[in-house]
Amino acid sequence: MLRHLARCSPFVGVRALNTLARNPGNFEPLTPLSWIDRAALVWEDSEAIRHGEQSMTWKEVRDRSVKLASGLTAQFGVGRGDVVQVMLANTPHMFEAHYGVPMSGATLGSVNTRLNAKEVAYVLRHSESKVLIVDTEFSSVAKGALEILKAEGVATPRVIEACDHHGRGDAANENRLDSDAIEGEYEDLLARGSVDFAWVRPEHEFDAIGLNYTSGTTGQPKGVVLHHRGAYLTALGNTLTFGGMPAESTRYLWTLPMFHCNGWNFPYTLAAIGGTSVCLREVDGASIGNAIVEHAVTHLCGAPIIVDRMIDFAASEGTTYDPPVKMMVAAAPPPESTLKKAADAGIALTHVYGLTETYGPATTCEWRTKWSDESPEKQAVLRSRQGVKYPTGDGATVLDPETMEEVPRDGKTLGEIMFRGNMVMKGYYKNPEATAEAFENGWFHSGDLGVLHPDGYMQIKDRSKDIVISGGENISSIEVENVLCKHPGLSGAAVVARPSKQWGETPCAFVTVDQAAVREGVEVPTEAEVIAFAKTDLAFKAPKTVVFLEELPYNNNGKVQKVVLREQAKAMGDHV
Amino acid sequence: MLRHLARCSPFVGVRALNTLARNPGNFEPLTPLSWIDRAALVWEDSEAIRHGEQSMTWKEVRDRSVKLASGLTAQFGVGRGDVVQVMLANTPHMFEAHYGVPMSGATLGSVNTRLNAKEVAYVLRHSESKVLIVDTEFSSVAKGALEILKAEGVATPRVIEACDHHGRGDAANENRLDSDAIEGEYEDLLARGSVDFAWVRPEHEFDAIGLNYTSGTTGQPKGVVLHHRGAYLTALGNTLTFGGMPAESTRYLWTLPMFHCNGWNFPYTLAAIGGTSVCLREVDGASIGNAIVEHAVTHLCGAPIIVDRMIDFAASEGTTYDPPVKMMVAAAPPPESTLKKAADAGIALTHVYGLTETYGPATTCEWRTKWSDESPEKQAVLRSRQGVKYPTGDGATVLDPETMEEVPRDGKTLGEIMFRGNMVMKGYYKNPEATAEAFENGWFHSGDLGVLHPDGYMQIKDRSKDIVISGGENISSIEVENVLCKHPGLSGAAVVARPSKQWGETPCAFVTVDQAAVREGVEVPTEAEVIAFAKTDLAFKAPKTVVFLEELPYNNNGKVQKVVLREQAKAMGDHV
Repeated sequence: MLRHLARCSPFVGVRALNTLARNPGNFEPLTPLSWIDRAALVWEDSEAIRHGEQSMTWKEVRDRSVKLASGLTAQFGVGRGDVVQVMLANTPHMFEAHYGVPMSGATLGSVNTRLNAKEVAYVLRHSESKVLIVDTEFSSVAKGALEILKAEGVATPRVIEACDHHGRGDAANENRLDSDAIEGEYEDLLARGSVDFAWVRPEHEFDAIGLNYTSGTTGQPKGVVLHHRGAYLTALGNTLTFGGMPAESTRYLWTLPMFHCNGWNFPYTLAAIGGTSVCLREVDGASIGNAIVEHAVTHLCGAPIIVDRMIDFAASEGTTYDPPVKMMVAAAPPPESTLKKAADAGIALTHVYGLTETYGPATTCEWRTKWSDESPEKQAVLRSRQGVKYPTGDGATVLDPETMEEVPRDGKTLGEIMFRGNMVMKGYYKNPEATAEAFENGWFHSGDLGVLHPDGYMQIKDRSKDIVISGGENISSIEVENVLCKHPGLSGAAVVARPSKQWGETPCAFVTVDQAAVREGVEVPTEAEVIAFAKTDLAFKAPKTVVFLEELPYNNNGKVQKVVLREQAKAMGDHV
Repeated sequence: MLRHLARCSPFVGVRALNTLARNPGNFEPLTPLSWIDRAALVWEDSEAIRHGEQSMTWKEVRDRSVKLASGLTAQFGVGRGDVVQVMLANTPHMFEAHYGVPMSGATLGSVNTRLNAKEVAYVLRHSESKVLIVDTEFSSVAKGALEILKAEGVATPRVIEACDHHGRGDAANENRLDSDAIEGEYEDLLARGSVDFAWVRPEHEFDAIGLNYTSGTTGQPKGVVLHHRGAYLTALGNTLTFGGMPAESTRYLWTLPMFHCNGWNFPYTLAAIGGTSVCLREVDGASIGNAIVEHAVTHLCGAPIIVDRMIDFAASEGTTYDPPVKMMVAAAPPPESTLKKAADAGIALTHVYGLTETYGPATTCEWRTKWSDESPEKQAVLRSRQGVKYPTGDGATVLDPETMEEVPRDGKTLGEIMFRGNMVMKGYYKNPEATAEAFENGWFHSGDLGVLHPDGYMQIKDRSKDIVISGGENISSIEVENVLCKHPGLSGAAVVARPSKQWGETPCAFVTVDQAAVREGVEVPTEAEVIAFAKTDLAFKAPKTVVFLEELPYNNNGKVQKVVLREQAKAMGDHV
């Protein structure tokens, strides 16, 4: 279409500055895929992937990706407009799929590997996936999903099993798919492919590269369609946000699942800069900590829970990460207490924020040099903010959803965090209503409520649906949680609304006790003590109810399932 | 046009992956201009520009740029399709013009400040510039140019004088423009502008941001039209090529003229990453060396001659640059001897290559870690190559111009270096013939001849017109020059063809004696000694004639004017 436009505007003459025609020599659709060809040329024999004992060069990974594309095309006739779904752990297979699947012209669907059979069936059905590539660890779930589809009479995808010999995949799974249910193994598919396959470039940079289903806490998941242009720009933005990632000396550890927003597009970033992926199936503290030391990891991304595990590991080993490892942290704002501990442990945190709809991180709490002179407490407060738009983003701010005006920079006035520009999804797959709603008034609505501080940095105050409205006042559940996490006897807190005859709602806190602290002599607080502690900082915003739990209910992405807690709070009956 | 397209493709449904519509929420034309708004927000009070005693924050530079755009619009009605020409040194004014001019919607024309009145008149006439902003240092040349245009009855641009109080501008110039010939001074223009001006975004990212006239050695200069998309991508590619440029701690020294390919788009890079520009009018060794030390410079770009001056300065001060300063070097391949000396002096060189038509550097000799184990001589050989395409480029290789096939990777077979993709110009302004010729067969033809090495890295062997064809053999003038520069008694060499009855052509070398070496006891070589020295490495490719010069004739961009030397060689008559 664009090429056609170019041919239609051959006007060259006076005032022709803006009309000089596009031609094959000066225009090419942006795509992150081209970076792997470049990486295979430049860093041919340099390590692209390390996975336990396994090591692959950029040339090998590039060739395997092209063979994957070729195999998919040859064996299944996969091409433009098709979806190839993968259910893979953070393995070399998953890294290759990020190139090989779109190199066939198809769109990469990445199933959350923690879903159950019914949920996976939904994704396969809705995405009309032509092929499913499944790690043997997840074969039993896949099997269940396929049975559901068959029972419904729905067409099932062709299935390829991927055996990761360097992980627990084979051994742990006694429920492999029957040999007649699969079309073969991943390595056989590659063997059938050709390294000389002319991989398929996108016709347009706005073509779909990825399809990721959001794990909505309510309703059916929505299929977020991401394009080549956005993935390309996000991948470049990542390098700037990390302050640069030097070629060959960057070693990136995979704790963030690659199925989650395509690992924030870091599979593409790493080919652009020539860095090494250190794969990891297990994300417990010891696995992470040992991988960092053993593989000289320089960078990683993850949720606050990963930071906690890294802190605990360093403490248990009586060591720190040296040189400090650079880490982007997102998902939920890390409690201020975590930020302080991380710095002490040698974890140089950059706090980022985004959604699947924004390709992963789309804001960064860009650290100012002058802030390093502030007290550790002040630094933690500054760093806990969601910050400013990505260098490759266009708009990311807090707007009044009624007027669509920016809220004043007072750190108080609540508005909705909204995004616009090249780092925003194409839309929701086969869901025009949700797409139109999300893009109302020309901005993508995040559903997160936030404020702008006087320096223009934004901070999330809550999800729209998580705000507690008590006596007409908005209470940010996150603000209350941050205060509770400072209590020496508590390790976690989640606050939801409890119905109240008098106030409409009151804040109800679910908390977990810090067992390590208790072992060291800290007393387990009572409900009254926790409330009193919170009141010092929060006054009327302090919780009226405190419930002690063994563990908070996390969803598959490491977020607390507030929907579960809200039910529990509701079941407790009206608070006076 | 694209927005219109979006409205025309509302189809959302099955197989809608690639047709989901573009909308204002998920598409914005790429432009580097938006980075200055972001820089003013994030690094508000951080130093954006240092110019002698003068220092400006990002907020100040952003506000002044917007006022410039506003002033141009208000006072001169400047807008889309117009050209605002600037004739400015590496001053804050020039940096601001890179934002302010395109923020008015106009295209920035950057005159080479070393041109004479006739040449400047050509640029003004051909570009139909609406406004000319001229540094008072160049007022007399500008005056001459305007007089030529008036004498021709051609419309002259409105003129603004810019006084750089922190340079030699005012004092050195006794030939200022008459007050009735100018419309006012730069600061008055800004004073008339408003900081609240809604700056003009490009309608399309393919719109023209810059117009740069090439200093062709023959024929009339051509106006290279560059677009927002290419400037944006080049600016990001720069950060990767430098291996990252961290915010606030990057301090970039301006020796490369900003009029030259828009300073390779580093004015845009610096806003993207929040780095400081250290401005400099004088580019002698002492000014550069002292600026590096005084302003803690971390990065710079320049021609090999600048490297020489930096090496000499360090030697004369008996010091090295510590920590090493990172430098991109281009224009001509640095002689191997220079590369070795630079490393010793604390200059970490990255060798890049490109043309005005490719936004500046479009290839980089990406350094492999393993090469650091090679001998210094081998390292210099490896580093002198032009390397591989930029991470943000699409195609850059050596093709046989007849077959358009890549030449074999044998380090021998000559082909033409060609480029394609988003880092290639729109075309030549008002010159459809030259545009069509440059883009023949869908690639931009550089006019440089090169080879591909077995590792895929390219190396320039010569400009097409500089090759010496002797007895039917191609002799690369650069190859001969590299050998001559290794002679301990020589400081420079340029090789051209001398007509020969017997051979057709023979290589003729123009050389300069290394006076510093001579002072230290090295003997001045004779012609016969130089030829004998060259024969050891070059055999039949050694020069047949050697001419000693006080200085090689350089053009305005620091390139040797081989056209002058060729004339001189021709005048010497046929060589036997």
